[in-house]
Amino acid sequence: MACASKYSFHDDYSEGAHPAVLEALSRANHSQQNGYGNDEHCKEARKAIHKLIGSDTAHIYFVPSGTSANLLSIASHLRPHEAVIAAEPAHIVGKEGGAIEATGHKILISPGINGKLTPEHIQSAFGRNTQFAYQPKPKMVFIANATELGTVYTAQELEPIAAICKHLGLLLLMDGARLGAAMASSKNDLSLKDFYRLTDIFWIGGTKNGALLGEAVVIKDPIFGAEFPYHMKQRGMLLAKSRVLGIQFGTLFKDDLFFQIAKTSVEKASKLAVELVGMGFELWKPVESNQVFVIFPEELVWELEKQFDFFVWEHLDDGHKVVRLVTSWATLDSKVEELLALVRGGP
Amino acid sequence: MACASKYSFHDDYSEGAHPAVLEALSRANHSQQNGYGNDEHCKEARKAIHKLIGSDTAHIYFVPSGTSANLLSIASHLRPHEAVIAAEPAHIVGKEGGAIEATGHKILISPGINGKLTPEHIQSAFGRNTQFAYQPKPKMVFIANATELGTVYTAQELEPIAAICKHLGLLLLMDGARLGAAMASSKNDLSLKDFYRLTDIFWIGGTKNGALLGEAVVIKDPIFGAEFPYHMKQRGMLLAKSRVLGIQFGTLFKDDLFFQIAKTSVEKASKLAVELVGMGFELWKPVESNQVFVIFPEELVWELEKQFDFFVWEHLDDGHKVVRLVTSWATLDSKVEELLALVRGGP
Amino acid sequence: MACASKYSFHDDYSEGAHPAVLEALSRANHSQQNGYGNDEHCKEARKAIHKLIGSDTAHIYFVPSGTSANLLSIASHLRPHEAVIAAEPAHIVGKEGGAIEATGHKILISPGINGKLTPEHIQSAFGRNTQFAYQPKPKMVFIANATELGTVYTAQELEPIAAICKHLGLLLLMDGARLGAAMASSKNDLSLKDFYRLTDIFWIGGTKNGALLGEAVVIKDPIFGAEFPYHMKQRGMLLAKSRVLGIQFGTLFKDDLFFQIAKTSVEKASKLAVELVGMGFELWKPVESNQVFVIFPEELVWELEKQFDFFVWEHLDDGHKVVRLVTSWATLDSKVEELLALVRGGP
Amino acid sequence: MACASKYSFHDDYSEGAHPAVLEALSRANHSQQNGYGNDEHCKEARKAIHKLIGSDTAHIYFVPSGTSANLLSIASHLRPHEAVIAAEPAHIVGKEGGAIEATGHKILISPGINGKLTPEHIQSAFGRNTQFAYQPKPKMVFIANATELGTVYTAQELEPIAAICKHLGLLLLMDGARLGAAMASSKNDLSLKDFYRLTDIFWIGGTKNGALLGEAVVIKDPIFGAEFPYHMKQRGMLLAKSRVLGIQFGTLFKDDLFFQIAKTSVEKASKLAVELVGMGFELWKPVESNQVFVIFPEELVWELEKQFDFFVWEHLDDGHKVVRLVTSWATLDSKVEELLALVRGGP
Repeated sequence: MACASKYSFHDDYSEGAHPAVLEALSRANHSQQNGYGNDEHCKEARKAIHKLIGSDTAHIYFVPSGTSANLLSIASHLRPHEAVIAAEPAHIVGKEGGAIEATGHKILISPGINGKLTPEHIQSAFGRNTQFAYQPKPKMVFIANATELGTVYTAQELEPIAAICKHLGLLLLMDGARLGAAMASSKNDLSLKDFYRLTDIFWIGGTKNGALLGEAVVIKDPIFGAEFPYHMKQRGMLLAKSRVLGIQFGTLFKDDLFFQIAKTSVEKASKLAVELVGMGFELWKPVESNQVFVIFPEELVWELEKQFDFFVWEHLDDGHKVVRLVTSWATLDSKVEELLALVRGGP
Repeated sequence: MACASKYSFHDDYSEGAHPAVLEALSRANHSQQNGYGNDEHCKEARKAIHKLIGSDTAHIYFVPSGTSANLLSIASHLRPHEAVIAAEPAHIVGKEGGAIEATGHKILISPGINGKLTPEHIQSAFGRNTQFAYQPKPKMVFIANATELGTVYTAQELEPIAAICKHLGLLLLMDGARLGAAMASSKNDLSLKDFYRLTDIFWIGGTKNGALLGEAVVIKDPIFGAEFPYHMKQRGMLLAKSRVLGIQFGTLFKDDLFFQIAKTSVEKASKLAVELVGMGFELWKPVESNQVFVIFPEELVWELEKQFDFFVWEHLDDGHKVVRLVTSWATLDSKVEELLALVRGGP
Repeated sequence: MACASKYSFHDDYSEGAHPAVLEALSRANHSQQNGYGNDEHCKEARKAIHKLIGSDTAHIYFVPSGTSANLLSIASHLRPHEAVIAAEPAHIVGKEGGAIEATGHKILISPGINGKLTPEHIQSAFGRNTQFAYQPKPKMVFIANATELGTVYTAQELEPIAAICKHLGLLLLMDGARLGAAMASSKNDLSLKDFYRLTDIFWIGGTKNGALLGEAVVIKDPIFGAEFPYHMKQRGMLLAKSRVLGIQFGTLFKDDLFFQIAKTSVEKASKLAVELVGMGFELWKPVESNQVFVIFPEELVWELEKQFDFFVWEHLDDGHKVVRLVTSWATLDSKVEELLALVRGGP
Repeated sequence: MACASKYSFHDDYSEGAHPAVLEALSRANHSQQNGYGNDEHCKEARKAIHKLIGSDTAHIYFVPSGTSANLLSIASHLRPHEAVIAAEPAHIVGKEGGAIEATGHKILISPGINGKLTPEHIQSAFGRNTQFAYQPKPKMVFIANATELGTVYTAQELEPIAAICKHLGLLLLMDGARLGAAMASSKNDLSLKDFYRLTDIFWIGGTKNGALLGEAVVIKDPIFGAEFPYHMKQRGMLLAKSRVLGIQFGTLFKDDLFFQIAKTSVEKASKLAVELVGMGFELWKPVESNQVFVIFPEELVWELEKQFDFFVWEHLDDGHKVVRLVTSWATLDSKVEELLALVRGGP
């Protein structure tokens, strides 16, 4: 099948998998394996992640999608009356089709800043939602790293978030759909060990970092962890051939492939950002991972749309547009150059 | 990775995918595609299925697992107070972790016969559940073809089921996790056109018939069909790289690969059944697709377990065991022979 | 408003409340009280129940209906993947509109005997539902006392049920919609202290024993107990004027009114049963509380239906009918006599 | 039982029922009636409401609480992926324990103005939530009249709301917990006929306007209307003795009692507001029904709290407090005077 007519910076899931992942799938294809995550490949992938997070006891499961990772994390850790605090731009708030509410839980929205929550946001959301009797009880905080807006948490930001969560009796869930990109950020000073230490549950995104599909959920609580497969099965998330997920994560966490992929991806976004700023364009949000949100005049957007595919994220009041450009391991340098040349040329 | 130490007749998802499927994934890997099922591969696969079912208008979607296909079919077609009638051994009743109930719907259980429902079962379940006021309202009938016990519906059986459903105002859902095997049955006299005509919603299983993962859901109602992706997203079932599913189904429905795979699978089960009956063993259920349920003495089971992996399905009162042997496209003839030789040798 | 044209033995909720209850509502009408169960009347009613169950620490709440008591008890005590074992004729199975499933939980059905479960039923249901991986996890046992069929648990029956629940890690929930009638049974040898000791959660029915509406839920677990009002609010069960429930239960548990009401109710059923058996009619179920299930020839049923209202519960194969006659505190002795005379007269 | 030590302006549900309601309950107490809403009293109350709304065909049901009315209205009218737009201060957003989310539906929050939505708010919320694919689908608009902040909709406001809902394919639900007070407002120019014409479903609050408990839900759609009792039963909201609700609404809608009660209630609030403004205090929100939100200095609040019970609604940045004073049919004029005298006296 031929490439689409326009080159796409629309997202980081336009291509298939990193070639090494496909090769591994082929190599293991004919071995017989147990179903439902009890295969040797999942075991191996778990072992690799255990090493990276510095724990032998964490429960680790592989699920097919980011939304499934989020809804399972929340449904398995909360009682019906408990709610989750999230920043307004968070993926679970407006982009997952009401997936969290479909499990019965309310999301308590905080404005956040640049897609991130601060301890003050958490304290304030907690306060507002425990002011009257019988409000839904705040019991969890949801953050994403990188955030929906491409920003990244530093140690100085995440440590006090973890602290206030403990103080207020809140669980901390970190969506890592783009955790690879976050960790490849020049801003990042946190390791997988840190994420495991600071959160109650977090997940590592495969889909947007080299896999065909799949996210790895890491659970600290031993009881919630042990019972997680019941939830996976109940929500239709437990693949018979979970080997497909195990093989992919096993490959990604061998020889640092996961981190190399992320590095490539972030470098391309950095290049885009540096060049665009150099040309005098304003960034809508700081570029910290593999997403560039840049403000373009409308005419330029029209021009670019003739040759490229991308997301117009916001329509600003002055007629300017916020354009989102996403890079991945598969983004072609030549296409980055072409795009920049076109921008340089102007509308 | 080496094969497991014992050869497995445990299920039809022990291996990866049919090699043609993997090749197709590799071939298409670098093309850029839209996410969430709007890619060229899904379109192509839909086109192939449209042709096979004889309808251009049916909505077709690709979901990652059988449980997800079932729960989405039910949640998208029923109102909260509506319930689904199913045979006692049906997968949704006892083997999907309460997935249907987790969407809020009750399953009304009918004993059925050999895993199948008859019009009499449906009428009786309907009657019992509309006897008192405010019982959950029966609104759908669930059947599987092949059933959980490997049996297969004929036209003479399915036509009156469809008729009584219409008569009673019930929707008909057919789980096709093993529809390939059902259609390859010597008993089968129904086509995909028939299944589309006779049901309101049915799905075609990929996972157990050559794919790495994936089931194709076919929806007749135009409104429920158009809104289905909302439900997929809401339940975490909408893969960003849905191309992975589209490519697989496109491959399976090219040059009849899907049906060839099923044929191979059913032939191996038939051979097993014929030989075992020839040796004097009793079949627990008629062997009509790719599953053999055979009654073995306990000592023989112990002997076989040394070299083979399989499911002991039931423990009969006389000490005999019901053993389930499942075959697939990947089952090795040599292993079938080894198993039969071992049985012939006796305990 | 005049009485209905036919006198009703249809149920035990055909009339309003015991007069003492209405008087108490009037007496307290103008006092100002806190809302949502924090009023003096609820406190007083709790105190009375605390004394009767022999615990100062149990959490006690008042909810408007039996179905709400059941669904709240289950939703507040189970995690999403956990299921509840119940006897086939249990009210939650077929007569509550799928209320339990609407909270996401599966009911695992056991045949039971005469509406009751035995330890063997529980063990067997537990076994069948932990045989395969990812079946919904049994975590609670539901019994009703009196049962849907009017039968009553003795100490010799309930003690081993409580024991096996503990052994298997199952919570025990007792529906007490007709607990008054059960305790007034000549068969009963259990006290409210016993019910509190033997169960994890049980409720005392007001609606069918002298109240306008209301059931008192008694919870042992201190955390589940403390958080119960969140669930009540979330399910719309927390009445602003909960005083209405508190006043009623306060009245019922003052001077043993609750038990006197139940005694009257059961005596009338006993009389009916004794007389009917004396006339040679067969009882369909043993009459142990305030419900009489008796087998009548069809012609007699037609005759009775001219003057009385009652439930035809089952249509037996031989043309006979099972008729349910229910008595209450309000049942008129003269009408019992009229009914018996009519039966004596024959069709 | 004595009155509480402090007189309460905390809410409009501190007392029992209007005496005429209690008398009617006593009068009808011994008549035998069908259960579950099929009694003569419910029929009579429905007839009265039918007359008031100018329709013989609307389905009308009586439920025990406001939260139950809201969650039933939403769960019975929406499909799982559909969401409801509401103003930020709406009761369903933050004060019902996540009741709507517990039925699986997301609430899409609009800021609103003074607790009300305008067509612009609805258009904007609709736009924001249909901007990306797979956002939860807006399908209903929730308004309350009077609002949570005591404001009231005029014809000039409600007509265009109804129009834009139709235009955008949105259902319109009106919460009438305080509909009596709204209709008694000097601002009101709408009748029950208008509310029926302009909404798809609305409910008339009894609890806060003279009843012990109960709200009357009025449904326009004939199918949703006919199936509503299934939902009531499934959510535990269908009282066996629904007569209790029928008798109350029958009484309230006889001889305009409902409207007289509301009138008294609103007059007392108006008096409070006029006097407080006369003393120079600022109202936080316009006083249009039976709630007064007034800004007091902190010291005055402390002083008042010694003798009166009320809600401190907000803590303003300058140290002032927003105090909510609620009046009802039962509010004593002498206490209104006492309160005003105390305020006049100052801290």
